[in-house]
Amino acid sequence: MNWCRYQDGDQVVYGIIDGDTVRAAIGSPFEGGFATGEPRPLSDVSLRLPCIPPTFYAAGANYRAHLAWAAENLGGSGKAPPRADIGYRANNSLVAHGENIVIPRDSSGVVQVEGELAAVIGKTVKHLTPENALDCVLGYTIGNDVSERTWQSSDRTLWRAKNTDTFNPMGPWITSGLDPEALEVTTRINGVEASRYQTKDMIFSLVNFLVETTKYVTLYAGDVMWMGCDGETPVIKAGDVVEIEIPEIGVLRNPVVRG
Amino acid sequence: MNWCRYQDGDQVVYGIIDGDTVRAAIGSPFEGGFATGEPRPLSDVSLRLPCIPPTFYAAGANYRAHLAWAAENLGGSGKAPPRADIGYRANNSLVAHGENIVIPRDSSGVVQVEGELAAVIGKTVKHLTPENALDCVLGYTIGNDVSERTWQSSDRTLWRAKNTDTFNPMGPWITSGLDPEALEVTTRINGVEASRYQTKDMIFSLVNFLVETTKYVTLYAGDVMWMGCDGETPVIKAGDVVEIEIPEIGVLRNPVVRG
Repeated sequence: MNWCRYQDGDQVVYGIIDGDTVRAAIGSPFEGGFATGEPRPLSDVSLRLPCIPPTFYAAGANYRAHLAWAAENLGGSGKAPPRADIGYRANNSLVAHGENIVIPRDSSGVVQVEGELAAVIGKTVKHLTPENALDCVLGYTIGNDVSERTWQSSDRTLWRAKNTDTFNPMGPWITSGLDPEALEVTTRINGVEASRYQTKDMIFSLVNFLVETTKYVTLYAGDVMWMGCDGETPVIKAGDVVEIEIPEIGVLRNPVVRG
Repeated sequence: MNWCRYQDGDQVVYGIIDGDTVRAAIGSPFEGGFATGEPRPLSDVSLRLPCIPPTFYAAGANYRAHLAWAAENLGGSGKAPPRADIGYRANNSLVAHGENIVIPRDSSGVVQVEGELAAVIGKTVKHLTPENALDCVLGYTIGNDVSERTWQSSDRTLWRAKNTDTFNPMGPWITSGLDPEALEVTTRINGVEASRYQTKDMIFSLVNFLVETTKYVTLYAGDVMWMGCDGETPVIKAGDVVEIEIPEIGVLRNPVVRG
């Protein structure tokens, strides 16, 4: 099932997608919502963020080929972290499918994209076990962790390198019923493939992150956990269009402009 | 004016405090809310978090004596950061005035408290200037950035060291009309003073953080920015009661228990 959020007049509503159509929902996917009303063409609606996370978690360094690339290009040891220590991104940086990625005018460095699988938490949970961890996941969407590499090296925190407004596109919608370790993530710049990797190559699995994180932290409905990316990370510049595709979910597409 | 949030039957409502009484509000402080109904004794209501931040910002290292202390006790250079690079905390860790700080059973390290001034943003803003920056601040509350020092040293991120559930008490309410650089922050453990410092000693002022952050980041109503703490940070253990006082605001009091 695919849950989305879209603009309906002056309201943002949840909807359930069926093929090329969408039907407005009563309630949200987090409280047993269900579809109602007439189907309308999906192409007629303006998609919004599929959820607004109470907390926005990010695995960060979680694939070996990306660590090796980062060690060569950004510094760092290239070694895998010893434990599944979760990190964070900030909500101000989220934009929906179709919205612009805006590179600030004073960015003088390289800006790159990191296409990622993102898990959407469906309910309040703590102390998950390997056996029940995935039961809290409502579904999966796609994230693009846009990164300004000069600021990533120079700043004390990742605040502007990875959390500048518009630097975290997420969408297009939430798809349930997937195996998070059996997906392929492809990034295209202006229609040309620039990166492709398999989520089976994660260093720490989603189950591992969920179990470790919830030893200390309660997860809530709508929280998202982005799982990191593998390999090289393509450069973007104003005028480009970035697409991240996970075929079982769809395509997250965002144009790039200069601020 | 003091704005609070409290439990009223099965609802959490905003209220306006007048001396020892509180009156329920229509609307929130972020949308021109105003007091209504009869005053009731403040001691009769159960306070909740004064707001739920869309994003929870934290200045981190922002006082010289704390940097010197941290260099000696946690490692680090002791040097002031070159710029006002903001950091983050996570909403799961917030608890209200009066709620327990729960030290996880498997914490084998020292747990300490950091009493802080916290600014509450009142409206959507970007590109603030030194002249207008403080106009976006609705008021101020008190934060206690509880820190597990072993995890702070061992982990790749601050996730459990500073964001374990209950590790960020905030309250008791929001007070408007204050000068953020003219306040004194006192920490008491079981009624005994353990730390005292002046907010005039901040390395980067709130104005500086607001101007720098909003070059890249939009702030929203309800966002909070915690300003760091100075000097030593008192140790807590199960059975203690921690009080952080800023006289112009009030006292944030939380008991400590073991998980």
